[in-house]
Amino acid sequence: MNDRPSSIVPPDAARAERVGRYLDTLTKPPGSLGRLEALAVTLAGITGEDFPRVTPPGVVVFAADHGVAEEGVSAFPQAVTAQMVANFAAGGAAINVFARRLEARLEVVDVGVAGELPQTSVVHDKVRHGTANLAREAAMSRDEARAALAVGRRAAGRAAEAGCRCLIVGEMGIANTTASTAMLAALTGAPVAELVGPGTGVAGEALAHKRAVIEAALIERAPDTADPLDVLARLGGLEIAAMAGAYREAATRRMPILVDGFIATVAALTACRLDPALRPYLIFGHRSREPGHARALAALDAEPLLDLDLRLGEGTGPGLAFPLLEAATAMLAEMATFAQAGVDDRAER
Amino acid sequence: MNDRPSSIVPPDAARAERVGRYLDTLTKPPGSLGRLEALAVTLAGITGEDFPRVTPPGVVVFAADHGVAEEGVSAFPQAVTAQMVANFAAGGAAINVFARRLEARLEVVDVGVAGELPQTSVVHDKVRHGTANLAREAAMSRDEARAALAVGRRAAGRAAEAGCRCLIVGEMGIANTTASTAMLAALTGAPVAELVGPGTGVAGEALAHKRAVIEAALIERAPDTADPLDVLARLGGLEIAAMAGAYREAATRRMPILVDGFIATVAALTACRLDPALRPYLIFGHRSREPGHARALAALDAEPLLDLDLRLGEGTGPGLAFPLLEAATAMLAEMATFAQAGVDDRAER
Repeated sequence: MNDRPSSIVPPDAARAERVGRYLDTLTKPPGSLGRLEALAVTLAGITGEDFPRVTPPGVVVFAADHGVAEEGVSAFPQAVTAQMVANFAAGGAAINVFARRLEARLEVVDVGVAGELPQTSVVHDKVRHGTANLAREAAMSRDEARAALAVGRRAAGRAAEAGCRCLIVGEMGIANTTASTAMLAALTGAPVAELVGPGTGVAGEALAHKRAVIEAALIERAPDTADPLDVLARLGGLEIAAMAGAYREAATRRMPILVDGFIATVAALTACRLDPALRPYLIFGHRSREPGHARALAALDAEPLLDLDLRLGEGTGPGLAFPLLEAATAMLAEMATFAQAGVDDRAER
Repeated sequence: MNDRPSSIVPPDAARAERVGRYLDTLTKPPGSLGRLEALAVTLAGITGEDFPRVTPPGVVVFAADHGVAEEGVSAFPQAVTAQMVANFAAGGAAINVFARRLEARLEVVDVGVAGELPQTSVVHDKVRHGTANLAREAAMSRDEARAALAVGRRAAGRAAEAGCRCLIVGEMGIANTTASTAMLAALTGAPVAELVGPGTGVAGEALAHKRAVIEAALIERAPDTADPLDVLARLGGLEIAAMAGAYREAATRRMPILVDGFIATVAALTACRLDPALRPYLIFGHRSREPGHARALAALDAEPLLDLDLRLGEGTGPGLAFPLLEAATAMLAEMATFAQAGVDDRAER
């Protein structure tokens, strides 16, 4: 199903093992920094470095519209996608706040917003003016899905060329939990009822309607569930495709990738179906409150770092988790060994 | 049981409520930043500020020895307490690494290390040269427990005077999980078997021995479980008492307190029994792998921010959680409102 051979090399297992042994020489009971130690080992394997660095991080937010918004599946009108891009450009959104804290390179990419965006600080790499309404026809063509994957690859490439050492990928797109839920149902076979959730805030009858729209679309679009590109084209979104492309490019360049919540994880699952060699490069930032996220994480055998009831997207979960990666690398690089510190590392008995 | 009236005022509920309403005007679906929003509300109530600040944080690590170490309850010899204080002074321990990342004021206080410490960068405020062996006699006198509480109060006072806006309290003391487990069993009535754990790394027969030592001490010391100062004196530790004193002083000064793992939470429970007005000032940094921690957290109705399988102490859990407090305050202060950003905040239907 992959349309080209994988360009992703496996992580450096020998390096990871060496770093794991080194961690036990540092002045702490072995293993007592728990998942932070596991993170350090993972980062060593991904980067192939004994003392990996993850700063500066690159944050890329892909924005696109969804034709299915006209079915009334979101609590917000479609115009909010473009309005939020303007908010990103002005620095007022949550991801702007967190990216500034991390001294991250932040790039906002229009891969498919419905209107024309005037902001010069936005990267204009639009594949089409929003997807078609997946409730009525395929969201996009196979070629358009490929083009959106390429938008993501280019964005990750720019982050790498700019010196970023960790990639955080976010999204903005009114109605994109509808597309993601449909994709996840197709990719995993899980019932829509188990996956569908409030997104930006639908509940009650509106949520039942969202579920019905997705269930009907799965039948009518009838994607080839063994072909992730077909699922992406028929049910997906331009920003979801771009996220998948960005992950793959980052892994090719041996950059650790910090994955956001529900939509980002569906994009990650899609990208792993396109190329399973991607999976070891993915670190999961947080467990979202959106109900389908647990299923998407399980499909990737992923255990996120944070569990803070977030459901915003934009890359905010990784924005909050990134300091843990920094702390893991600092622990490795800066802690004294038992020998250096003159601390007794022998058990008493 | 409290030996003086509380000097802790309740958090500012009206301010907290106002900040909660303001959060819903920021450019995100209401509540979509989950626990980060709850943190912002909590910090507003504690500090009484619409836009609370938590930087710089103050980290205080209290070090003391435990007579019960001679029973062979730890994987490391008692000498490691003083050796690790030297490591703190030289900047090589995990808490040094994390404190540097946070640009925190770090103070190490000798409240009861067995030997004499030469380091001039350590605050020498020793109450006695380690506790007595709680398996044979009371760990300390009631007056010594009061003196150690006062050491903690002084340290928190210094942090506040130095301009710190959040207090992180850590500890170092070989065998202090034994003392903490005994205290927790006394304070909650929970069976030792449910609470006892590996500490720095005891297992198998050594763990069974640790459990037997604690069970015997509970019977032989027979503390008045309704009198937290009696529990502290008979079964506790000098650093545990100092932690409790530091929490109370910080709350008196309306500083948010970020609590570490098992030992820190037992100290927090003790301090809350001494003065229940303390509880709203405590924010719990992480859920430790040490089995008794869940029970200590439940006794305080506490839900920690992180769950990363840590079991180190020193203040490392809060050191990793602190960026979430910073992010919560930055979200509040820096995000645009819907009106400012020109983003439509009305639901479509």
